[in-house]
Amino acid sequence: MLDKLWPTLARMREQRPLVHNITNYVVMNNTANALLALGASPAMVHATDEVEDFAAISGALVVNIGTLSSEWVSGMKLAVATANDKRVPWVLDPVGVGATRFRTRIAADLAKMGPAVVRGNASEILALAGAASEGPKGVDSIASAEDAEGSAKSLARALGTVVAISGATDIITDGERTVKLTDGHAMMPLVTGMGCTATALIGAFLAVETDPLLAAAYGLAALGVAGKRAGEAAAGPGSLQLAILDQLHGLSEDNLKPSVS
Amino acid sequence: MLDKLWPTLARMREQRPLVHNITNYVVMNNTANALLALGASPAMVHATDEVEDFAAISGALVVNIGTLSSEWVSGMKLAVATANDKRVPWVLDPVGVGATRFRTRIAADLAKMGPAVVRGNASEILALAGAASEGPKGVDSIASAEDAEGSAKSLARALGTVVAISGATDIITDGERTVKLTDGHAMMPLVTGMGCTATALIGAFLAVETDPLLAAAYGLAALGVAGKRAGEAAAGPGSLQLAILDQLHGLSEDNLKPSVS
Amino acid sequence: MLDKLWPTLARMREQRPLVHNITNYVVMNNTANALLALGASPAMVHATDEVEDFAAISGALVVNIGTLSSEWVSGMKLAVATANDKRVPWVLDPVGVGATRFRTRIAADLAKMGPAVVRGNASEILALAGAASEGPKGVDSIASAEDAEGSAKSLARALGTVVAISGATDIITDGERTVKLTDGHAMMPLVTGMGCTATALIGAFLAVETDPLLAAAYGLAALGVAGKRAGEAAAGPGSLQLAILDQLHGLSEDNLKPSVS
Repeated sequence: MLDKLWPTLARMREQRPLVHNITNYVVMNNTANALLALGASPAMVHATDEVEDFAAISGALVVNIGTLSSEWVSGMKLAVATANDKRVPWVLDPVGVGATRFRTRIAADLAKMGPAVVRGNASEILALAGAASEGPKGVDSIASAEDAEGSAKSLARALGTVVAISGATDIITDGERTVKLTDGHAMMPLVTGMGCTATALIGAFLAVETDPLLAAAYGLAALGVAGKRAGEAAAGPGSLQLAILDQLHGLSEDNLKPSVS
Repeated sequence: MLDKLWPTLARMREQRPLVHNITNYVVMNNTANALLALGASPAMVHATDEVEDFAAISGALVVNIGTLSSEWVSGMKLAVATANDKRVPWVLDPVGVGATRFRTRIAADLAKMGPAVVRGNASEILALAGAASEGPKGVDSIASAEDAEGSAKSLARALGTVVAISGATDIITDGERTVKLTDGHAMMPLVTGMGCTATALIGAFLAVETDPLLAAAYGLAALGVAGKRAGEAAAGPGSLQLAILDQLHGLSEDNLKPSVS
Repeated sequence: MLDKLWPTLARMREQRPLVHNITNYVVMNNTANALLALGASPAMVHATDEVEDFAAISGALVVNIGTLSSEWVSGMKLAVATANDKRVPWVLDPVGVGATRFRTRIAADLAKMGPAVVRGNASEILALAGAASEGPKGVDSIASAEDAEGSAKSLARALGTVVAISGATDIITDGERTVKLTDGHAMMPLVTGMGCTATALIGAFLAVETDPLLAAAYGLAALGVAGKRAGEAAAGPGSLQLAILDQLHGLSEDNLKPSVS
């Protein structure tokens, strides 16, 4: 099902699509670097003064609620409205949904605005689906992707979107078709913002692939392969963070072989 | 006095306590990664819309005034009030206190709200203590920890808190008991946010150790040992920054032996 | 023309001038680290509550519009007014000018306020000069420095400032004198914020060199030499980002030999 991954990435690298990110302070540097290393052209633009102009010229939009505030929500909603109007695909990362009432409400509001893809960890997808989670615990997941698979399918059907759960096994589903990926490395959860990076890479693929299920799977596959290769040599999570950027840059027809389960 | 450092870290790694950070833009990525590498679960949540909900579910709170603005001060004060109410311990990092009137006023306001620990460099502690500093110079210290030891003790007694000064020698005091640590590496001041990282690690230890003097000493000891080990091989401050993350992750019963003077 | 580069850097390292940055969220950590590695003392201070106090005690001011919003513009303008009043030199980085109407207007407003240096990529300088650009494309340049040389000279004369274009060839001009530099590495555009780092380093040199043409050339020369040396060994853009910090720290009388064309 992922046999077009490499040619799609090669096309991205030729086009270097502009990816508009409204994301959190913690990961901005990393996700910008990950997008550059993969082959896209990132920009971080959040203010209501200009998000409409910017979303209109972008190939895709990434909305990530990690370090949320009311002002930024206004920018997100304006950018999403423009993206929807201009048929620019967008991906939602509901970081920490379930941890506070504000966050849960905003994530639900955005999820109803028509994202092409929603990407979260298992706890976040469970919380967004309203399913019985084991309760919030910051931004790290305490549930496994498998726990959330059923909820992900229901959520995908209810919202008419693709839901991607990242974890030791990544599960990507539109409610009908499901892809499972098993690359990555055990140390990746010790690097902050790996999920946010996954979401950003999905955004880059949305700019060049019209099927959002494939775009989501491509993004997670690229990060999984890069993470697996990086993890083999990394001395710790600090080394891993930068080695993943090197490996994203080094993805090639030869090594971009995701493990599909 | 630090003989429980290793078992305390081992307990932290089992519990992975949620550490709520309201910190500055410059260091968010590094301190999140440092907390993950040490063994805690970090989250950066700053908005008045949700800090109360979040502080209430956290094991500790870190308040750092590095890139201050009025809006963020509101979030800090709300979070602190909740933390105090729910008996969540918190640590204050008065970055750059003394450099501007606004910053000095806010740091003094927060210091009076009951932090378990205040961590700064010598210039900051002198400024906060109202002692005669050599005058503000950005966020880098121009005084040595020894210069500030007396002021730190007075401040600790006046506020009923623990004061930790980081520097070539770290000095941690509650006004009665004092611990001095001499690990670390001469290149650490050339990495931005090392002090902020120290404060964050103290926050993680506050979540698992009820004596704030020990929690502060444990945090500085962990960073000092990791920094010393990282510095031995680092080619420069760029390499050092990530090697410290690797070394924090690699702290073990065998190598976690702080130098107490 | 650059024969005083090394003694100027040596003087900076003795003085460690305070460089006040109002810059974007994406690059704050990197530019703070680059300034520390070069030999300056960085601080990131943006709020209207304190920028006047802070600009007044700084050796130079860096204004970068990467992640712009109205609130931050207010801080930038207050800081610039203070800098002008206190004769603190400042450098403007008009990130992404041309991409949105808001951004173009703010960049033009700031450019008229008397920066010592304006540093951008070729597309940005073309947009700021009002010349016919090939149109905005995020924050990455699609024009070469040579394309923009004429516009840069006109802009420098019109504003009475130095204009620095970074690219494969860096071009620095005050409208009369022009310096061209050809160091750097082909992978540098794949690291986010390299342009912002160049601007920050120019700020550091403005604090110790009164001729802004030389300060701008020194900043670009230091980054170009560090980037070239770092690129020789880097496995990818992740490694390159940190190796540049190591190399900035390692600049010495022996290796700081820029290639002037």
